[in-house]
Amino acid sequence: MYSELKQRVFAANLKLPQYGLVTFTWGNVSEIDREKGVIAIKPSGVEYDVMKVDDMVIVDLNGAIVEGTLNPSSDTATHLELYKAYPEIGGVVHTHSRSATIWAQAGIDIPALGTTHADYFYGDIPCTRKLSCDEIAGQYEKNTGLVIIEEFTHRRIDPMAVPSVIVAGHAPFSWGKDAKDAVHNAVVLEEISAMALATRSLNSGIKIQPELSDKHYQRKHGDNAYYGQR
Amino acid sequence: MYSELKQRVFAANLKLPQYGLVTFTWGNVSEIDREKGVIAIKPSGVEYDVMKVDDMVIVDLNGAIVEGTLNPSSDTATHLELYKAYPEIGGVVHTHSRSATIWAQAGIDIPALGTTHADYFYGDIPCTRKLSCDEIAGQYEKNTGLVIIEEFTHRRIDPMAVPSVIVAGHAPFSWGKDAKDAVHNAVVLEEISAMALATRSLNSGIKIQPELSDKHYQRKHGDNAYYGQR
Amino acid sequence: MYSELKQRVFAANLKLPQYGLVTFTWGNVSEIDREKGVIAIKPSGVEYDVMKVDDMVIVDLNGAIVEGTLNPSSDTATHLELYKAYPEIGGVVHTHSRSATIWAQAGIDIPALGTTHADYFYGDIPCTRKLSCDEIAGQYEKNTGLVIIEEFTHRRIDPMAVPSVIVAGHAPFSWGKDAKDAVHNAVVLEEISAMALATRSLNSGIKIQPELSDKHYQRKHGDNAYYGQR
Amino acid sequence: MYSELKQRVFAANLKLPQYGLVTFTWGNVSEIDREKGVIAIKPSGVEYDVMKVDDMVIVDLNGAIVEGTLNPSSDTATHLELYKAYPEIGGVVHTHSRSATIWAQAGIDIPALGTTHADYFYGDIPCTRKLSCDEIAGQYEKNTGLVIIEEFTHRRIDPMAVPSVIVAGHAPFSWGKDAKDAVHNAVVLEEISAMALATRSLNSGIKIQPELSDKHYQRKHGDNAYYGQR
Repeated sequence: MYSELKQRVFAANLKLPQYGLVTFTWGNVSEIDREKGVIAIKPSGVEYDVMKVDDMVIVDLNGAIVEGTLNPSSDTATHLELYKAYPEIGGVVHTHSRSATIWAQAGIDIPALGTTHADYFYGDIPCTRKLSCDEIAGQYEKNTGLVIIEEFTHRRIDPMAVPSVIVAGHAPFSWGKDAKDAVHNAVVLEEISAMALATRSLNSGIKIQPELSDKHYQRKHGDNAYYGQR
Repeated sequence: MYSELKQRVFAANLKLPQYGLVTFTWGNVSEIDREKGVIAIKPSGVEYDVMKVDDMVIVDLNGAIVEGTLNPSSDTATHLELYKAYPEIGGVVHTHSRSATIWAQAGIDIPALGTTHADYFYGDIPCTRKLSCDEIAGQYEKNTGLVIIEEFTHRRIDPMAVPSVIVAGHAPFSWGKDAKDAVHNAVVLEEISAMALATRSLNSGIKIQPELSDKHYQRKHGDNAYYGQR
Repeated sequence: MYSELKQRVFAANLKLPQYGLVTFTWGNVSEIDREKGVIAIKPSGVEYDVMKVDDMVIVDLNGAIVEGTLNPSSDTATHLELYKAYPEIGGVVHTHSRSATIWAQAGIDIPALGTTHADYFYGDIPCTRKLSCDEIAGQYEKNTGLVIIEEFTHRRIDPMAVPSVIVAGHAPFSWGKDAKDAVHNAVVLEEISAMALATRSLNSGIKIQPELSDKHYQRKHGDNAYYGQR
Repeated sequence: MYSELKQRVFAANLKLPQYGLVTFTWGNVSEIDREKGVIAIKPSGVEYDVMKVDDMVIVDLNGAIVEGTLNPSSDTATHLELYKAYPEIGGVVHTHSRSATIWAQAGIDIPALGTTHADYFYGDIPCTRKLSCDEIAGQYEKNTGLVIIEEFTHRRIDPMAVPSVIVAGHAPFSWGKDAKDAVHNAVVLEEISAMALATRSLNSGIKIQPELSDKHYQRKHGDNAYYGQR
């Protein structure tokens, strides 16, 4: 019944090791079918090289398993909060990709420093506040989602214009219009994170010109975009 | 009619992922046929693993499409300005290769620090000034080319002796006698950019001896060059 | 007689070059059979690409060769001390993997800076004290083991909760419930060592929240663990 | 007549791209036949993927071509000075491998910081003084060799105990008992150069304990060496 959804989510998960974004099982991708009110997500702790398409788990928006014999990713509750808060997003991905995780561990926003960043992200990529002890002790993964949403709301960031976040002390989440697009954004996030690390070590106070950031974001994503074959 | 030109440009574009210079579609190579007054260039936003030789776009020096069904690279106007200003160059390449882009984002010239640099580049690789708001809002890609040319003219740099530039806040452009040679220079640029980053972190004030720079550049490129099999 | 043990140790050793943890022969893995009172370990100085399963050496807990025609790893005495001190461990691995070795050379504990670390290691990974001149001049490899044990005892660290150590001026050792698990931990150690290097350069004073460390370690390893398919 | 020598030198040269030590043609390996008074060396500027065994050039100790149709490496005169000064060495290699070149460009000795270094190099790896303007303008490649030898003589370093050097502003040379061994040392040099870079950024004043350096060097290379299968 969910075979196409599972196939897409399976394929998107396999992109994570191909792009060097994961060590062992440290990543998971999901995609939502909003009509049916379910998501497909990677099972928890299963290695990518033995994982099969039917291992994908179908979960409803309350986190109950609808189809599948394995436990869904332990991060499922974070994915669900993002889907519930942001109706525009269709796919979510979590990794511990090295350079983005470094910024998350440092607890510092990933600054917009060049057009590579601006082509995909309209402004800095926010680092969340730390979770409180109660938020950690309680529904931790759900609260991780809520803290992400709080950060975007508080800073008035459009999640479609900045489709990634880093969670303080933890690692990145990215999203997009579907699972494939979310993984695409996760790859970009990793590359710009690596570039930003060295850029700041060369020139600690540098920022991108706002006009250049506008130009590059709009030529790809604006109403008059002219990048690509549209 | 342009099949050999397209074949060469196609092959040179495929070198970009092979040498690890591009993520996704973040790069483009062109070559000029000066007799016919056209260039062949990569189509915009097409993935390297599905791109075909006939996807290359033939464009005249005003940017009008002469042959091809796809949009040319959004950076075409930058390539054209370089070809028009510098009659010696036959190929141009633009990438967001990691280490060169880091120097571009930092807004700092890539300093000549050793013979690896001197074998290909006669002196520092300039970083352009920032484009003005008007230059960004107007014909941005054409103005990017003009700002590159301004930098070389103002500093009296011979573009054949320093066949690369980094555009402030953006990324590198390289060129050469044809598309293949331009890509060769882009590979060298990336390697010396990576070396320069770490060299400066070890010894912040270091520079190459001018005599050593002269010697290495001349033994490969001077009238009495003796490197290689010429 | 020891064919299964040798097969497992052989397979675990081959993982080292696959995961990029070794250059040439710079690593060795062992596993213990506690009933029979022997370990299997890589022979000394044999290249991974020519090594055969029957090259594994069977050694008793005094270091005497029980089966095999080659010399065991020169680090065998270190492995033996760890097995004798810690009855819970079944496999030991030693490498000179780049990032972990950097921390060992710097003589600094690898700090717990994020959940990637906390998922596997409960707190900082200790760097031992330097060996004394007498310890180096005497039974050096055995004394390396004793200094590791001293460090864990002195700091009251549970070796199963922190299954790795770095030896000052030298390199890491990791362990686990068997040879495969020890190698798994060595891969994680290398990744978190690389992340910690850059995290500290971005934010020199940062530490993980203790509550977040607890949470991630317990959700994978605690009595109520819910990560994976158990 | 020199087919075995050429075969060994050819194979050793092919190891350079396999180990990631060269970009394009930036490296060359030679081996000497002391009885016949000749060396075999890579031809200048020939790409590794098209190079054939018979492209190797046989040169006598004055640099005259004995056999071969191509020009020998432009660095041949440096190799020859090393062979003439050090009768113990049988192979020489020159690369621009990234991390070793970074130290050369910085003009700083590669410090002995751990056992990985001590297993192969007995003490710091020296960086030569800069060549004078006259030395550069004259027989540059020969003078490069003479400056290397001057550095070892002046500091009283045994070239067999420290089988590598970095030339200020340039790049490394390594050597060994034959071509294969020289390449082996070049691989080690690159790895310890990368480790040393990050170790010094973590702990700027750190050095290896002299006793630990002695121990590791002697257990591999001393009269009572017990590493490996000898």
